[in-house]
Amino acid sequence: MKTSLARRVVAEYLGTALLVATVIGSGIMADRLANGNAALALLANTIATGAALVALILTFGQISGAHFNPVVTLMDAMEKGLSWAETPYYMAGQILGGITGTLVAHLMFALPVISLSRHVRNGTSQAFSEFVATFGLLSVIWGCSRLRSNAVAFAVGAYITAAYWFTASTSFANPAVTIARCLSDTFAGIRPVDVPSFVVAQFLGGFAATALFRWLVPNLQVRAREVLLAHDTEQNR
Amino acid sequence: MKTSLARRVVAEYLGTALLVATVIGSGIMADRLANGNAALALLANTIATGAALVALILTFGQISGAHFNPVVTLMDAMEKGLSWAETPYYMAGQILGGITGTLVAHLMFALPVISLSRHVRNGTSQAFSEFVATFGLLSVIWGCSRLRSNAVAFAVGAYITAAYWFTASTSFANPAVTIARCLSDTFAGIRPVDVPSFVVAQFLGGFAATALFRWLVPNLQVRAREVLLAHDTEQNR
Amino acid sequence: MKTSLARRVVAEYLGTALLVATVIGSGIMADRLANGNAALALLANTIATGAALVALILTFGQISGAHFNPVVTLMDAMEKGLSWAETPYYMAGQILGGITGTLVAHLMFALPVISLSRHVRNGTSQAFSEFVATFGLLSVIWGCSRLRSNAVAFAVGAYITAAYWFTASTSFANPAVTIARCLSDTFAGIRPVDVPSFVVAQFLGGFAATALFRWLVPNLQVRAREVLLAHDTEQNR
Amino acid sequence: MKTSLARRVVAEYLGTALLVATVIGSGIMADRLANGNAALALLANTIATGAALVALILTFGQISGAHFNPVVTLMDAMEKGLSWAETPYYMAGQILGGITGTLVAHLMFALPVISLSRHVRNGTSQAFSEFVATFGLLSVIWGCSRLRSNAVAFAVGAYITAAYWFTASTSFANPAVTIARCLSDTFAGIRPVDVPSFVVAQFLGGFAATALFRWLVPNLQVRAREVLLAHDTEQNR
Repeated sequence: MKTSLARRVVAEYLGTALLVATVIGSGIMADRLANGNAALALLANTIATGAALVALILTFGQISGAHFNPVVTLMDAMEKGLSWAETPYYMAGQILGGITGTLVAHLMFALPVISLSRHVRNGTSQAFSEFVATFGLLSVIWGCSRLRSNAVAFAVGAYITAAYWFTASTSFANPAVTIARCLSDTFAGIRPVDVPSFVVAQFLGGFAATALFRWLVPNLQVRAREVLLAHDTEQNR
Repeated sequence: MKTSLARRVVAEYLGTALLVATVIGSGIMADRLANGNAALALLANTIATGAALVALILTFGQISGAHFNPVVTLMDAMEKGLSWAETPYYMAGQILGGITGTLVAHLMFALPVISLSRHVRNGTSQAFSEFVATFGLLSVIWGCSRLRSNAVAFAVGAYITAAYWFTASTSFANPAVTIARCLSDTFAGIRPVDVPSFVVAQFLGGFAATALFRWLVPNLQVRAREVLLAHDTEQNR
Repeated sequence: MKTSLARRVVAEYLGTALLVATVIGSGIMADRLANGNAALALLANTIATGAALVALILTFGQISGAHFNPVVTLMDAMEKGLSWAETPYYMAGQILGGITGTLVAHLMFALPVISLSRHVRNGTSQAFSEFVATFGLLSVIWGCSRLRSNAVAFAVGAYITAAYWFTASTSFANPAVTIARCLSDTFAGIRPVDVPSFVVAQFLGGFAATALFRWLVPNLQVRAREVLLAHDTEQNR
Repeated sequence: MKTSLARRVVAEYLGTALLVATVIGSGIMADRLANGNAALALLANTIATGAALVALILTFGQISGAHFNPVVTLMDAMEKGLSWAETPYYMAGQILGGITGTLVAHLMFALPVISLSRHVRNGTSQAFSEFVATFGLLSVIWGCSRLRSNAVAFAVGAYITAAYWFTASTSFANPAVTIARCLSDTFAGIRPVDVPSFVVAQFLGGFAATALFRWLVPNLQVRAREVLLAHDTEQNR
């Protein structure tokens, strides 16, 4: 029996909020403590983010599918895992959740509730990095849709841990998170003007991976429905 | 067949003692070795604590439920996972275990057995951080109660790894651990006078998450009984 | 039902490309941020690589077996897990994938597409390190072939995480990755002239482990066919 | 069908050799690269050791039980998991394996094959630390003997990761490893004269945990036979 749409959208909202609170909050903490050593700050930010993804996907995976990411939601709709009618609600929940996460992080660290980022992240190599980052993320998701759903949590957490370091953009790979991060003038921020090219590159990377995996895994649609959608918990025990 | 109450309370005592010995002991070691680099010290403290939680929840989960935390125990009693009559014994075991962990850490590092902390941790943003930290922790626990119980160990360990960095208070999220940490004038300490607001915020965060997940996961009580209570091991193999 | 050879070779190509992009890209990022602290740079490089292996083996394991490594492919053919006719296609996919990964990493970091490495890695102790590294890797793979295939992803990721530090050569342990790394004059590079002794040592280490495990695990061939080959996904759920 | 004693002893030899090569080799590498920052060196040493334990226990667990540790072997014999006649062979394999690991690490790093350590590790608090470290290790092993055996690999790796930091002695917790480490005048070494008190404390810690868990888990002996002994692989799939 499927969970109601309202519950699933709240789960997407809550999970994305906690994810963004982790990305921004751990960036603030790391930046404050690292005495200007950027490698150490990014390492702390990475470990916090990867760990949060494992915890949050295990927590919300069986309620809403734990997308937390409009690219994942759109690709899932294309593969018929989610109905088109439900797609905008998922995306709205994710975007609002991301913004809430920024607010919560700022409140915890006694900063102004909103502050537009001045962190420059532009140029072709940054956009190409986001294309690669999101191509890899969707590859991991589609590849793991063949496995029991718990493995997805570890695979996605591990992938983002790697991608923070192997891409020049530190792998945003998520439009909702990108929007939320432009509202924070801290370590993890991005200038609002740089957001559009990131988001476009992210959707293109997601499309490319989905097209490739349609060929690579012939019965992808069947599996998408089983794994990425909210599903009755009994079948997963 | 359920494990006897005496055995379960000893398991809570032992697990909380080892958890607190890790939090305080690794804080002392990290502080001694890090040459004043607070980010590096907190990273070592984080990795040790997250890893200890994975090990200890896998070890004691099937004996006592591995709460190690009065907020978890109270919420579990509210959800009928634990009887009200057993609740005070669980909490006493956790608080005494936490204090024992402090003593053991101090003995290992040749420090005075007890020392009241002078580490200031007060103000609204610290209390709000503890509210968020414990809200997130109970969300993870209730969300994962749908999964096989081994996943809870990894989810909680990963969550606390993230929360050490994304909250301004480094996520105590546990009244027994908070009390134990006020008895240690070391890296992980907290002034006794700052304990009450932390504990109140922790219980409020736990209540908020439990109320939300009652709506989010309609059959939460049934699952609470299966997952958080000590249970016959055969069903988990 | 087995996945077609074309799909499996593309999976090997793609997985090796993402693996090498991680090794080289995270090396560049770590080197840039670490202010000359080589331990911190290698730690970031290690965590990214180990995490990428977990994600990529979970992703491609059930499509192609996720070898990403000519030594693994040759040993698998010797143990009758892969037919000899398919072996050269696997190896070609891996080598081309590795080179592609180098190009992608360079493009993401706005570096020249190819640059021959000047990083000296020679001498007996380096070659012996590669022998030990690859001996250990194949031991882990054959030992875990007794387990459910998901465990292999975690075991290999954890093994390489350790081997980056316990070998003097930082554990290349993979001819395709070694070739790809000689085309990058960055942190993770190796001089082209040093490649042959690395590759020879890697194959010798792989042979030694395989010979030993033939005796240690009598029914190794039966298991190799089940675990390292691409197989129908149903049996793994 | 049980694996032959010869195969099991070789597995103990090989696993302990790779474990000690990791402990000593990663200590050498970390010490060389860390520019005198002891916290960073220990963090690298910790991550390498914890990851090696996960990989090696998954690899050898179903061949020999993956003890790699005379305390574990003795306790397992006391609980009737291993016959008394086989116990000395296990221990000899572990001790010889540990010494081999030291030699291999030294050869990889082009150091003299053997060098007696001058690293002072004495005093009551060091011995008490070893008691606590081994008490915790055996608690984790006995507690997890209720779970599927793969969980033991993650629990032990995570426990040692924590124990490197929360004990003042960096948690040797293993007589075979302690003996091997006195033959290396490097980061991970221990003076030969300090070995006996470490070993005595380790056995006492193991006894204490085993006595406690006999009461805590009434059917411990039955489970010990199933989990810690080498067993037919079919029952674990």
